[in-house]
Amino acid sequence: MTSTDLHIVIPAGGIGSRLWPLSRADRPKFFHALTGGGRSLLQATLDRLSRVGSVNNTYVVTGIAHAAGIAEQLPEVPQDNILAELSPRDSCAAIALAAAVIEHRSPGAIMGSFAADHLIQDVDLFAKTIQESLAGARDGYLMAIGIAPTEPHTGYGYLQCGAAFPDSAIRHVLKFKEKPSLEAAQRYLASGDYLWNASMFVWRTDVFLGELLSHRPDIHEPITAIAAAWDTPQRDKVVAELWPTLPKIAIDYAVMEPAAAMGKVATIPGNFGWNDIGDFDTLGELFAGVAGNTVIPDVNANPETAHRSVVNIDSTGLVVVPRSDRLITTIGLEDLVIVDTPDAVLICRRDRAQDIKKLTETLRAQGHTDQL
Amino acid sequence: MTSTDLHIVIPAGGIGSRLWPLSRADRPKFFHALTGGGRSLLQATLDRLSRVGSVNNTYVVTGIAHAAGIAEQLPEVPQDNILAELSPRDSCAAIALAAAVIEHRSPGAIMGSFAADHLIQDVDLFAKTIQESLAGARDGYLMAIGIAPTEPHTGYGYLQCGAAFPDSAIRHVLKFKEKPSLEAAQRYLASGDYLWNASMFVWRTDVFLGELLSHRPDIHEPITAIAAAWDTPQRDKVVAELWPTLPKIAIDYAVMEPAAAMGKVATIPGNFGWNDIGDFDTLGELFAGVAGNTVIPDVNANPETAHRSVVNIDSTGLVVVPRSDRLITTIGLEDLVIVDTPDAVLICRRDRAQDIKKLTETLRAQGHTDQL
Repeated sequence: MTSTDLHIVIPAGGIGSRLWPLSRADRPKFFHALTGGGRSLLQATLDRLSRVGSVNNTYVVTGIAHAAGIAEQLPEVPQDNILAELSPRDSCAAIALAAAVIEHRSPGAIMGSFAADHLIQDVDLFAKTIQESLAGARDGYLMAIGIAPTEPHTGYGYLQCGAAFPDSAIRHVLKFKEKPSLEAAQRYLASGDYLWNASMFVWRTDVFLGELLSHRPDIHEPITAIAAAWDTPQRDKVVAELWPTLPKIAIDYAVMEPAAAMGKVATIPGNFGWNDIGDFDTLGELFAGVAGNTVIPDVNANPETAHRSVVNIDSTGLVVVPRSDRLITTIGLEDLVIVDTPDAVLICRRDRAQDIKKLTETLRAQGHTDQL
Repeated sequence: MTSTDLHIVIPAGGIGSRLWPLSRADRPKFFHALTGGGRSLLQATLDRLSRVGSVNNTYVVTGIAHAAGIAEQLPEVPQDNILAELSPRDSCAAIALAAAVIEHRSPGAIMGSFAADHLIQDVDLFAKTIQESLAGARDGYLMAIGIAPTEPHTGYGYLQCGAAFPDSAIRHVLKFKEKPSLEAAQRYLASGDYLWNASMFVWRTDVFLGELLSHRPDIHEPITAIAAAWDTPQRDKVVAELWPTLPKIAIDYAVMEPAAAMGKVATIPGNFGWNDIGDFDTLGELFAGVAGNTVIPDVNANPETAHRSVVNIDSTGLVVVPRSDRLITTIGLEDLVIVDTPDAVLICRRDRAQDIKKLTETLRAQGHTDQL
């Protein structure tokens, strides 16, 4: 089996409310270019995954509303591989659907699941790490790619590692840990036994579906029935009947934690520079420019004016996201996020960037649904 | 002579760069509604002056570019009374033109000159003060309306007062003082002998033109020639020939200061609540609302959405000027100015609001002329 046998799954779900007003229900985070290049996060994800798997064996699982937009951004991906969910049922249903469809089409395949909206800095090292993980997957482990932590981050989940495999970088995973307190995170970092959980998984589809059957038969049964009908005229009928019965649960809780408890999960530490771009503050840390100000350029802007769309006087530590072709000017500001879109503008302290999600809830309560 | 004999002159010049991006070269400060009501500053000026003079004897002096806009906002003012300047030659030329045209049409008239973009709180008291000033004007004084200072303001010029007239609130003016240091302003305030110079003047046109002849014959001669031609077919020819020769000088320097030195200027203290709305910070002081946040509503906005166009979470001391029908959202901000227009947005510390003028100079240097 070569690396091109790897089946790639990209779950493209979630709005990314912390990136409002850029991310919207009808244009979530993964559709946007945030890293300075002309490619969206989704496109960059496909670009990097093309190093480890063929585009013909690449799948995207997404909501019905986004299937067309994804086909447009990723014309290389076969139409049949864009799996549209009838309604959002959280990550276990999404990933299980992909696993079951792939298992049905290519029994015993190895699949890797990779979020659509993360940032990877060293793409070569990323590809090498994924390829190294394949050995564990072939041996029947659910592989969770871990990220060697560089700070006691309290916004990520952690993998608690056990013994290393012989002659291998792969280690057993003892436990999945939820977002820790700062004190716990400092302890994790000092111990050397914890990795960030990047929500990237590699496994044999038959192994994963076996674990799903063990731990969540209530998901396994409808998902395998849906997958059996997927490539038949019965798809719509079966989906309409069974999809709404699926419980909403994250894959970590439903499968990975109980499988880890039974010794079925392993990990490989990644040092390729990973970030989930959880909020605008992170963009400022990743891409700080002149005077600590960061401008995330608009790839769709008029190139003649885009380079001078932000004029700062005595401002520092800004994260500016111009998305409306308007002139943005500041005087004397410090450490703020400024996001300018055609129908909404946000100005927020950088250290409150996590509260943008709360703001979107306030907006919903006040009836600002057009801008959400 | 009744108060309706007063000829009103409204010099409507200046861009109000400190109110950019609201004020623009093609839509200066006086065109905008900034005081919460539906009337622009210019319209509010006319409304208040209609208490002291008839609209048929009301004049506006402005640049050619704004004559049509002024006629639109002030349809009551006779078209013949909108005096369009060929080019900006500062306040002496503007006010002298009005005085000379009025003198030509109504010899020996009393005229009052009042800026187009100031705020007056007590309109009744304002009218009473102007009416009281007429006695001084009839007696041949150049009357400068003074404002009883409420703080040692360093942004205004001052009138140094001398003796009071017998049985009158009118006082002689000894000197015009430029914007003082804080120390000098404190001294002025403590002495009780200084008033703010509000750039409102009342005088007989023949008296004013006599002073102009004494002190600035180089202005008097072309202005009287232009005024003589104004209501004739020769106007354009004479204006084209003479207007460009007029020196650019403010009326305070050209006439009021030398006339004061010769005992020809008097003042009456006004207590009617006056503000020149010099910057956005001032708007916040005048109209602070919930949590110290001030929203200057857009009279042209969709009324169904305007009242909810600004959503703040934990922000205080903001001055928000929504002028694009977009949703403006903030989190955790303190003491900032936010001005949102269709082609430019400004975010500025309130205590840097005076530097907005500097910003417009930077924008000009960088070629952002479309937004100026």
